[in-house]
Amino acid sequence: MNIKDTLQTIGHAAREASRDMARATTASKNAALLAIAKNIRASAATLLSANASDVSKAQQAGLEPAMIDRLTLTPSGIEAMAQGLEQVAALPDPVGEITDLKRRPSGIQVGKMRVPLGVVGIIYEARPNVTADAAALCLKSGNAAILRGGSEALQSNQAIAACVRAGLKSAGLPETAVQVIETTDREAVGHLVSMPEYVDVIVPRGGKGLIERISKEARVPVIKHLDGNCHVYVDTAADPIKALAILENAKTQRLGTCNTAESLLVARSVATTQLPILAAMLMKKGVEIRGCEETCAIVPQAKPATEEDYATEYLAAIISCKVVADVGEAIAHINRYSSAHTETIVTEDYTNAMRFLREVDSSSVMVNASTRFADGFEYGLGAEIGISTDKFHARGPVGLEGLTSQKWIVLGNGEVRS
Amino acid sequence: MNIKDTLQTIGHAAREASRDMARATTASKNAALLAIAKNIRASAATLLSANASDVSKAQQAGLEPAMIDRLTLTPSGIEAMAQGLEQVAALPDPVGEITDLKRRPSGIQVGKMRVPLGVVGIIYEARPNVTADAAALCLKSGNAAILRGGSEALQSNQAIAACVRAGLKSAGLPETAVQVIETTDREAVGHLVSMPEYVDVIVPRGGKGLIERISKEARVPVIKHLDGNCHVYVDTAADPIKALAILENAKTQRLGTCNTAESLLVARSVATTQLPILAAMLMKKGVEIRGCEETCAIVPQAKPATEEDYATEYLAAIISCKVVADVGEAIAHINRYSSAHTETIVTEDYTNAMRFLREVDSSSVMVNASTRFADGFEYGLGAEIGISTDKFHARGPVGLEGLTSQKWIVLGNGEVRS
Repeated sequence: MNIKDTLQTIGHAAREASRDMARATTASKNAALLAIAKNIRASAATLLSANASDVSKAQQAGLEPAMIDRLTLTPSGIEAMAQGLEQVAALPDPVGEITDLKRRPSGIQVGKMRVPLGVVGIIYEARPNVTADAAALCLKSGNAAILRGGSEALQSNQAIAACVRAGLKSAGLPETAVQVIETTDREAVGHLVSMPEYVDVIVPRGGKGLIERISKEARVPVIKHLDGNCHVYVDTAADPIKALAILENAKTQRLGTCNTAESLLVARSVATTQLPILAAMLMKKGVEIRGCEETCAIVPQAKPATEEDYATEYLAAIISCKVVADVGEAIAHINRYSSAHTETIVTEDYTNAMRFLREVDSSSVMVNASTRFADGFEYGLGAEIGISTDKFHARGPVGLEGLTSQKWIVLGNGEVRS
Repeated sequence: MNIKDTLQTIGHAAREASRDMARATTASKNAALLAIAKNIRASAATLLSANASDVSKAQQAGLEPAMIDRLTLTPSGIEAMAQGLEQVAALPDPVGEITDLKRRPSGIQVGKMRVPLGVVGIIYEARPNVTADAAALCLKSGNAAILRGGSEALQSNQAIAACVRAGLKSAGLPETAVQVIETTDREAVGHLVSMPEYVDVIVPRGGKGLIERISKEARVPVIKHLDGNCHVYVDTAADPIKALAILENAKTQRLGTCNTAESLLVARSVATTQLPILAAMLMKKGVEIRGCEETCAIVPQAKPATEEDYATEYLAAIISCKVVADVGEAIAHINRYSSAHTETIVTEDYTNAMRFLREVDSSSVMVNASTRFADGFEYGLGAEIGISTDKFHARGPVGLEGLTSQKWIVLGNGEVRS
């Protein structure tokens, strides 16, 4: 069978399985999740051995140490996967929830029911734990999943998939509810993202290149997460202690995450008092400052920022910095340069806070809190399948609810339209 | 300027205007809507004259009478446009609504704020009233709009657009918040649907060909409405009086609407008692029945249905009919052949009703009510920009809320992540 036919067969089976998943009871979905967790713990030796084979091939192929690190499964990583499945089992089931039922003048009652999206395609790099995490979220939200992990992790993924299938079977759910694509040919991705008859949404998890390529090729909706060029704006009415703590946490707690601050904006009226303190903290932490002219005048160690700096997600010990007139200019700067991920204002001024919340066009907008909080676990979603920087459907951290939609329901008693 | 540059200029202006619209107060948006209504009434003579010119050209070009009918503005049609604007002004403003604020263990409060999508592109056929309706919904939901109407209605659309611009200006809102594309070159549509930097969503309103072409070309999300192949399922436990009334209304009230029933399913246990009564009503109303073998045995006047019949939206006095074993077979048939628009079950059985509601994968699922109720006005949305047969983002009738999204907001007091 050629790759296109293989994908069509997988897609067709997923569509069929999605019908069963949509009507599956919460109890059977949770039973499957707990069984998969149990299987993963019981198969630890098999998983470690499959993973060792993947890692050895990756080392021979000369993969970067960071990639090999993400590829490697450890006993504690396996335990974390099992616990992740148990945590998803403990989350409330979003499917079937009926809301907003209202009686209309015609006599009918109109409301909404939360339903699965159907079939979710997940494309990710060589991180075997994503196989278990993604399967868990799709399963709990009543969707079928087609998983395409990085080819370097193939044996690990197949071993995890076997645990998933056995868990589904033991709970009376179709084994095809979670399918792992076994061909490592890149052509498979092209087919996966262009079968609207079988796939309802694609979630790519990986580098910007992967996501851009998929978005371009896709003929189905994509929940995509591009850059995280996050901003901290220190307002005229900022509390200096909060500003220092928030900037330190947002920029320096972890340099390589998407919710790390990459740009600092400071209101002109507080620039000479606050910027030196903020800059001293950054420099002490080894962060290079690339600033506007005013920044460089106040902080002599700062390098001049280019236009490109303001649009850059460094993922490194560098921050861009600009002095702005007020909250209005801060909002305009952010809406122009930000990647619409997460921004925070530090202020004690109510009106500025409310204006920032309303007018900043990003998926997470914060007042007096670190951008590092933009995360499914911190938001209480239990887990996240990704963070969306789009506006359509789900924005920001996407959990179980983002994998569902709402249909209209009408409860009547024989009414007809006049 | 070539067409691509023209569209880029329009797109850039729309993006700029969308920032002002997002922060516009409810009062100023309503003032604009009421001013536009007033302008439309005051400009009735101008609108009628511009429209007469469009109609005369269309007649010379030999357009079909039905198209000319939709193109023609009458004094009462103009009054209806003005009233439509006033109705949208009276609707609650969805923008800025904060919901689900919850305090997290870290101390931050996390919730959601409803925000406009940004820039909405509407592509429609030669129906000038859509210009006013679409402008109203986009404006009220805080979006900027780019409208591309059928070229046959160009002068009418320009006259209406002048009323819209004057109304926006009088309320202190940017005139570029609603732009009408003036070139009639079809190339403009191709550019409009492939500027993700300027356009956040496309709503095509028109025939299936137009929508399919746009969906294929689009590089931004499309809220699309393809067929309405709606089903009435008469269950084992159907009340015969309700079944008759609902089928009559769903199939025969209007033949050409998307929420008209195109297929009848009858449970085998009641087929011999109910089908003759239902068929007699249909035939009396001049509706041709194309049925399965069992249908033809019970209703000798029925013609045999082909596989294709079950998948067809007739928009005519024809209905397909199939005898099914039970609610399970009805659901399977619908999920296979339906266009996922609207389906209804007629039943007095609680469990069958609940199962149908949950398992039918359509944008509107009803119990004991006519499919004809699937409509923004009947659902209480006030107005609709279209009906979505997709699952992603909005499903079913799309009103103001469907033109918005939700972003996350975090209210902190200096919290940092540990």
